[in-house]
Amino acid sequence: MTHFRAEDATEEEIAREAALYAPFTDAVRQLADATLRTTVDEDEIRAVQAEIEALTARLRAARIPGSYGVRYRPSGGGRAWGNAVVGLRNPIAPPVVTSVGDDGRVTTEFHLGAVYEGPPGLVHGGVVSLVLDQLLGQAAGAGGRPGMTGTLTIVYRQGTPLGPLRGEAWIDRTEGIKTWAKGRLLGPDGVTAEAEGVFILPKWARAMLAADDPETPVLPDRSYFQ
Amino acid sequence: MTHFRAEDATEEEIAREAALYAPFTDAVRQLADATLRTTVDEDEIRAVQAEIEALTARLRAARIPGSYGVRYRPSGGGRAWGNAVVGLRNPIAPPVVTSVGDDGRVTTEFHLGAVYEGPPGLVHGGVVSLVLDQLLGQAAGAGGRPGMTGTLTIVYRQGTPLGPLRGEAWIDRTEGIKTWAKGRLLGPDGVTAEAEGVFILPKWARAMLAADDPETPVLPDRSYFQ
Repeated sequence: MTHFRAEDATEEEIAREAALYAPFTDAVRQLADATLRTTVDEDEIRAVQAEIEALTARLRAARIPGSYGVRYRPSGGGRAWGNAVVGLRNPIAPPVVTSVGDDGRVTTEFHLGAVYEGPPGLVHGGVVSLVLDQLLGQAAGAGGRPGMTGTLTIVYRQGTPLGPLRGEAWIDRTEGIKTWAKGRLLGPDGVTAEAEGVFILPKWARAMLAADDPETPVLPDRSYFQ
Repeated sequence: MTHFRAEDATEEEIAREAALYAPFTDAVRQLADATLRTTVDEDEIRAVQAEIEALTARLRAARIPGSYGVRYRPSGGGRAWGNAVVGLRNPIAPPVVTSVGDDGRVTTEFHLGAVYEGPPGLVHGGVVSLVLDQLLGQAAGAGGRPGMTGTLTIVYRQGTPLGPLRGEAWIDRTEGIKTWAKGRLLGPDGVTAEAEGVFILPKWARAMLAADDPETPVLPDRSYFQ
């Protein structure tokens, strides 16, 4: 898989990169929000557009080919900075920042603004599923059972309002190469959506781990797939 | 619902706005892609960031409060330009552009680049569900049965590669206020994911239509919820 890149950056270099790219990417998130909501006049729109195009050309003077992929950290962990939900360098990611408790439960508090809208004033139902897929996948990974999503079911209890939200996910059970994870999103008025997903350990991971214990494969890296 | 805005723009004015905002928003999409993939040096990142912040301030000199919502067209149809999947003015929307066939089937061809990545080289599983939720909702709406997503189930058949994709959705059956829609995404190697969703006609729409025919409510507007 060419998109898995090993790198020789030290943890200090990675921290320095994060300090550079996090505010840079956030500036583009703010621009996206402003782009959607602006009511400045036509001439100003065209003038700003020309400047944006010039900035894009400057950034493209040097760039990676293809997509961002996942980089290995020296510690062995994955660095999913391109991820559409949690990616520090991805302007379309809110980004969702998660914590993993001692019990393996994944929790997060995050904010969804105007660009995540579906029905007026509400988070797009598909964005609800997008975030939940990520949280469930991370819960599976946090339990040493990373995998590709096999199935995902979302039950919508009420509209999810734009604004501050909470999310949580955990492993419900495992069976061979399958892990069932559950989770939910909560708004100011309580649970807005519940999710269940099945995550399948990929073949290459099974092969890697076969010599170890084929019945209960465990991978140290939590973020290959998230 | 304050986010439903009536407007007195003519169809010509709307076409003119589309011609202005579509390339403007696309320029921001290109910037987002460049932001994720750039390898220019630190000084250049900081310089570009400062310019982006200045452009954001210019756009914010005048803006709508809160989220974009859905505007009524003079024709009575909705205009979901802020929508996270299909929104012409939303930089995080690919955007997906759909067609509705005479049989009510919703189809689309679209492209997902690096910002939609999950596993290396593949579309994020949650982005797959995001697009499918939108397509299924539009199929329900195209059949005169718009609604909020009640449940959504995605079955992932294989990884969805970044790049050119197709999608389709249709109504499977209806029962009272519920509509079951199905759909799927296809990549170069065939079907990558299948979806089924239940869409619930909202209370206000039921009330509006009660006098008409409470058993088979039909709304002319296909896009209130998409």
